[in-house]
Amino acid sequence: MKPIQVGLLGAGVVAGGVVQVLQRNRAEIQRRAGRGIEVAAVAARDVAKARATLGSEVVLTDDFDALVRRPDIDVVVEVIGGTTRARELVLAAIAAGKPVVTANKALLAVHGTEIFAAARERGVAVGFEAAVAGGIPIIKALREGLTANRINWIAGIINGTTNFILSEMRSKGLDFGTVLKEAQRLGYAETDPTFDIEGIDAAHKATIMSAIAFGTPVQFEHAYIEGITKLQAADIRYAEQLGYRIKLLGITKRREDAQGIELRVHPTLIPGTRLIANVEGAMNAVVVQGDAVGSTLYYGKGAGAEPTASAVVADLVDVTRLITADPDHRVPHLAFHPDAVAATPILPIEQVVTAFYLRLQVADKAGVLANITRILADHAISIDAVLQRESAEGESQTDLIILTHDTLEGKMNAALAQMQALPTVLAPIVRIRKEELS
Amino acid sequence: MKPIQVGLLGAGVVAGGVVQVLQRNRAEIQRRAGRGIEVAAVAARDVAKARATLGSEVVLTDDFDALVRRPDIDVVVEVIGGTTRARELVLAAIAAGKPVVTANKALLAVHGTEIFAAARERGVAVGFEAAVAGGIPIIKALREGLTANRINWIAGIINGTTNFILSEMRSKGLDFGTVLKEAQRLGYAETDPTFDIEGIDAAHKATIMSAIAFGTPVQFEHAYIEGITKLQAADIRYAEQLGYRIKLLGITKRREDAQGIELRVHPTLIPGTRLIANVEGAMNAVVVQGDAVGSTLYYGKGAGAEPTASAVVADLVDVTRLITADPDHRVPHLAFHPDAVAATPILPIEQVVTAFYLRLQVADKAGVLANITRILADHAISIDAVLQRESAEGESQTDLIILTHDTLEGKMNAALAQMQALPTVLAPIVRIRKEELS
Repeated sequence: MKPIQVGLLGAGVVAGGVVQVLQRNRAEIQRRAGRGIEVAAVAARDVAKARATLGSEVVLTDDFDALVRRPDIDVVVEVIGGTTRARELVLAAIAAGKPVVTANKALLAVHGTEIFAAARERGVAVGFEAAVAGGIPIIKALREGLTANRINWIAGIINGTTNFILSEMRSKGLDFGTVLKEAQRLGYAETDPTFDIEGIDAAHKATIMSAIAFGTPVQFEHAYIEGITKLQAADIRYAEQLGYRIKLLGITKRREDAQGIELRVHPTLIPGTRLIANVEGAMNAVVVQGDAVGSTLYYGKGAGAEPTASAVVADLVDVTRLITADPDHRVPHLAFHPDAVAATPILPIEQVVTAFYLRLQVADKAGVLANITRILADHAISIDAVLQRESAEGESQTDLIILTHDTLEGKMNAALAQMQALPTVLAPIVRIRKEELS
Repeated sequence: MKPIQVGLLGAGVVAGGVVQVLQRNRAEIQRRAGRGIEVAAVAARDVAKARATLGSEVVLTDDFDALVRRPDIDVVVEVIGGTTRARELVLAAIAAGKPVVTANKALLAVHGTEIFAAARERGVAVGFEAAVAGGIPIIKALREGLTANRINWIAGIINGTTNFILSEMRSKGLDFGTVLKEAQRLGYAETDPTFDIEGIDAAHKATIMSAIAFGTPVQFEHAYIEGITKLQAADIRYAEQLGYRIKLLGITKRREDAQGIELRVHPTLIPGTRLIANVEGAMNAVVVQGDAVGSTLYYGKGAGAEPTASAVVADLVDVTRLITADPDHRVPHLAFHPDAVAATPILPIEQVVTAFYLRLQVADKAGVLANITRILADHAISIDAVLQRESAEGESQTDLIILTHDTLEGKMNAALAQMQALPTVLAPIVRIRKEELS
């Protein structure tokens, strides 16, 4: 049988990985897929540069639009990134009746509803395993492996840059700015790291997992997003003394009581004994809690040329199998059949329930703790633990750390405003959310 | 569309889980599968007892043979266990043209080649996600998610009973016999725990993963199997001092240099910083090393009614999709297409390469260490670390711990025989294999 012909859009790092893996493991992949998979042509903005990156065996073109329409192309792989040109080309490929494989989380988080609808109408598949957690087959696990479960929540370290920074801040006791510079020097962070450190990249991925887990449309616009730029080394240290690690988590959770879904990215305290708390450096890990299976965890490299290519090629093999099979019996793009998608709303952050870590810089006077705990009690927020740093001789202020039990964020905001107004609270209160992940 | 009709063979704990999950998550599963899935009838040896376990809504029969042939049954689920009756019934179902889903690792490890050949001939699918690591979708990850990779090795904690025992031995400093009794009392170990503690259950699962990873037939008869019954608390303690944990691992590894495959189950030292070293209690975890993706890890419950049912029902959803689709384009049972299966041999244990932990009870005399290290050097076995317990005042013997670098097991056996013959070695030498899993 004639090998599947791939049209590759983009000639960057991931494209190089795809070409490399398909060449090196050609025999192995054919033994599994039952059919060969070949890159027919690569579209690149700078053909000369692409030639240098991808080698002499690859056929190159600078006409992206022509490539997605070429009749001999069986499937289009989009690895150019961005949401404008990528959207046009993916929709053009679908319109031409071609299945698409993409590693583009931003594209799907923002334009997923439009793209999946177009694909469904045209009867073609869109693979996006590489869009979340790189080489970890988390989309397949959620969509197929855990299909028997009612998913309760997902929590993931889904951005390697920020996990590298947090790991370094903890192990070396350094502050955010210093570690960011080091990460940029080592290539773990971009020159403009905004998408990573502000949590936007993680929110794209959390948005996609949320839709798959709960059978809802992709709703990036309702995600709550808080990055790691304001995290201080002192809080990482205190958290550790209390038995916790701080990780940037993407979290999505079914909230029966509020008939909605939580979708949020923010720094989070998690117990140090949890496996995911021990995921260090640029690695990714996702915990999925299903009602039948309990908690399962998936761990691996979340980025890089070959880990991403691993996911792209897995999708290509799935597409190879699907091309001759019955479209009605495919795995639905977002796990649930499109006519069974639910309208459950994403909850605003004020309705989200978490525990909290609070650090207050307070005057070292009698009655300070009583005033603060009174405010918490007034808002029905109960306290899990209190840690007060012993003040040095002659020092007039100290740090007060409070761990609370679960509460509504809205209540905590009200309590924080009152605490902040106390004359004995001397600096802005630091507030980090805490999850037990049990 | 008419719901898929399931014939369930067996009415034990897992059968109960399958009935429960299909009932409770009926709507959720149908939204994903695009079609309902119903248990049409359950075959049980003791119908009255099954009625009590499974409730009044289930149709029961004691005629297993009739159930697998009933024309209205679309798919047969085998959860009776064992390798005799289960084999007959699975083959009968296949002969009747029915897809089969089984949780039976022993059956597939021993009779897999026969069963998959029969299924292929008849054009039906056999699902067995539940046979390895319970609810963790590791078969799907290996067969589909990592399909782009040349798999280098797999190492897994794939038996919850033994991991529970090892976790308790370590955390409480107790010996094997004491913890086994506790595990039996808590229901973590069977009354006859042989299959678990001797490593047989883990070897069944490692055998299945080995075949899928390397595209070879299932070869349980060539697996090297060593359980945990001889492990002593002292060695767990020493390992910890050296920064290691001892886990019962199922390991399978491609060995280019020996044109073969390692397939083995034995207690293993692994660095305490590895994520898998921190998998405690009855949990399972599998690390897969692929050439493109690097190391990925999959963690969750490896046993229990609902975790196992989670995997069984995921297979039922896959079968539901397959029933109307083209058999030639299915995912191959063992990941590789049957005509592409390789004949790579499983290596005998003497040709296996690992590092070693050795504990020698030695006379506290000059020259003892020199004699021992001389023997290792003669066999070209190099030493990674030596730890010698300081002997107490007046004591004439001490413990000598040696960590070696990687070596052939055959060489180590020869060196051990010579060391054991030294008059200064006072007791049988303890030898535990060590893996860096890096």
